[in-house]
Amino acid sequence: MQRIVVLAGGIGGARFIRGLKSAAPDAEITVIGNTGDDIHLFGLKVCPDLDTLMYTLGGGIHEEQGWGRADETFVVKEELAAYGVGPEWFGLGDRDFATHIVRTQMIAAGYPLSAVTEALCARWQPGVRILPMTDDRVETHVLIDTADLGDSVAGDAAEGRKAVHFQEYWVRLRASVDAHAVVPVGADAAKPGPGVLEAIAEADVILFPPSNPVVSVGTILAVPGIREAIADAGVPVVGLSPVVGDAPVRGMADKVLAAVGVETTAAAVARHYGSGLLDGWLVDTVDADSVPSVEEAGIRCRAVPLMMTGTEATARMARQALELAEEVRA
Amino acid sequence: MQRIVVLAGGIGGARFIRGLKSAAPDAEITVIGNTGDDIHLFGLKVCPDLDTLMYTLGGGIHEEQGWGRADETFVVKEELAAYGVGPEWFGLGDRDFATHIVRTQMIAAGYPLSAVTEALCARWQPGVRILPMTDDRVETHVLIDTADLGDSVAGDAAEGRKAVHFQEYWVRLRASVDAHAVVPVGADAAKPGPGVLEAIAEADVILFPPSNPVVSVGTILAVPGIREAIADAGVPVVGLSPVVGDAPVRGMADKVLAAVGVETTAAAVARHYGSGLLDGWLVDTVDADSVPSVEEAGIRCRAVPLMMTGTEATARMARQALELAEEVRA
Repeated sequence: MQRIVVLAGGIGGARFIRGLKSAAPDAEITVIGNTGDDIHLFGLKVCPDLDTLMYTLGGGIHEEQGWGRADETFVVKEELAAYGVGPEWFGLGDRDFATHIVRTQMIAAGYPLSAVTEALCARWQPGVRILPMTDDRVETHVLIDTADLGDSVAGDAAEGRKAVHFQEYWVRLRASVDAHAVVPVGADAAKPGPGVLEAIAEADVILFPPSNPVVSVGTILAVPGIREAIADAGVPVVGLSPVVGDAPVRGMADKVLAAVGVETTAAAVARHYGSGLLDGWLVDTVDADSVPSVEEAGIRCRAVPLMMTGTEATARMARQALELAEEVRA
Repeated sequence: MQRIVVLAGGIGGARFIRGLKSAAPDAEITVIGNTGDDIHLFGLKVCPDLDTLMYTLGGGIHEEQGWGRADETFVVKEELAAYGVGPEWFGLGDRDFATHIVRTQMIAAGYPLSAVTEALCARWQPGVRILPMTDDRVETHVLIDTADLGDSVAGDAAEGRKAVHFQEYWVRLRASVDAHAVVPVGADAAKPGPGVLEAIAEADVILFPPSNPVVSVGTILAVPGIREAIADAGVPVVGLSPVVGDAPVRGMADKVLAAVGVETTAAAVARHYGSGLLDGWLVDTVDADSVPSVEEAGIRCRAVPLMMTGTEATARMARQALELAEEVRA
């Protein structure tokens, strides 16, 4: 049985894995999930990427939106607003609240996030093993110009720069302002979660789905030991470009790519990962002309359709990633 | 301006105070609320009596039910059940959840319950000052026969007696089994909440609404200092019988009255409070024959209609309580 390890953020990663399950129904898939975008809201621990994985693979996702629950209602949020309690910019629905309540209660009872995630997955049956990248607290912060915070900062404080939580940057500010740095606070002291290094060591193939290379895959790689384990695994590591035609397929990756000095092109993202980590890279057919420059960097590259327009198209992408992995291995 | 202090439990107290506000619109009313039935559910601090007061007086109550919010939905609870997380016997709705989330978050941030209650009331504007009897943790436990817990206890453990949380006794078991004792755990070490003793000392009248004399008013009186302050206040203390025609008007007070050795009669409840505490007592017209026995116990007594069938009937009861207070004073 083929053992596949996938490093995943939220929507892009979750949708890709759904296609991968379809493409490789007999494989044992382990997903290492990003927890850098976790946030405490209303006293509850919210893990947006883990939840998107769980809901998408377990059949509870709001399909059009890509995050949150289907048939969601927002009564609790409205009531919190009536108490003057925010933030209002984060869309927590009633069904979603239950997940955070269970998680927070288990964490308060002493369970690590990995055990909590396993317990939540007992309901969702995602068909893959979802492992948080770490049980330790890591919080991705984005350094922005204070002036860009607008009305919420007044007077002298409007000078200079300020680090905001990734969710504030991504959701509240919609990544519309310049990011000067992306810092996974706490990552340097974090340990890989239980099973993470073992899964990598036992993998036959390691995949980077078209997740954000900075704030999703990049954050996972920032946990000491994970990047090294992948580089040393001795198995094909293949990624899929989240940039198509010089723009992120979804999300707003350009600003955070700029923050780490990477151009928003499929080739630049491959070079950012580097040949020390990546053996193969899929770019979209519209970026076929970038194949030579990726291969020059020592990374085998193919141009194939990379738009996840449905499970079938996504499964085809996953099959092509697995085929490229076999090419690399051979 | 007349200053009225009311000791109150949940539904009965809240409805009485609504009538009192109507009867004495210019009075400054301070409500000392029972917190002995507070419970932690799903990691959240739930204060059923304080919330019933707040919702009833603030216009958010589910009128027919007497507790919980109007137009309530139960999405979060259904989702928690889908995770296998209970208890299912406690009816927490989505709107109600928001209150507990705000409260829990404020308490985690270091605010005492009294400050939290004030903050929540800033939204509800109950028109009275609601003070928790204490900021310390008090939890009313009820001692029952273990066998009465039924299926949830097996084997050897089914022998003997067990203390259960008041809510488990009241809501889950519907007070259908014998109570051997009612213990306000923690009350002996609790201090009256901020403003409680001051309000009593400055009161012109103190009222005991037709709340449960054991688990509502009794729990408040169990906080050291409160009973003494009332006895020493030197102002009329008048109560309204929660027992009409030898049965509790609502709720299931007979079992907890039996636990403290008190008959379920209007006269027995008056004698239970005692003339050291109580100056006047209203019984229902159907209990008019008990007036002499109450007066023999040194408590002035009147028989008047005591069914809170609506705000007008309740306001009349409140007026009669205030009139009896003036009679006592004169």
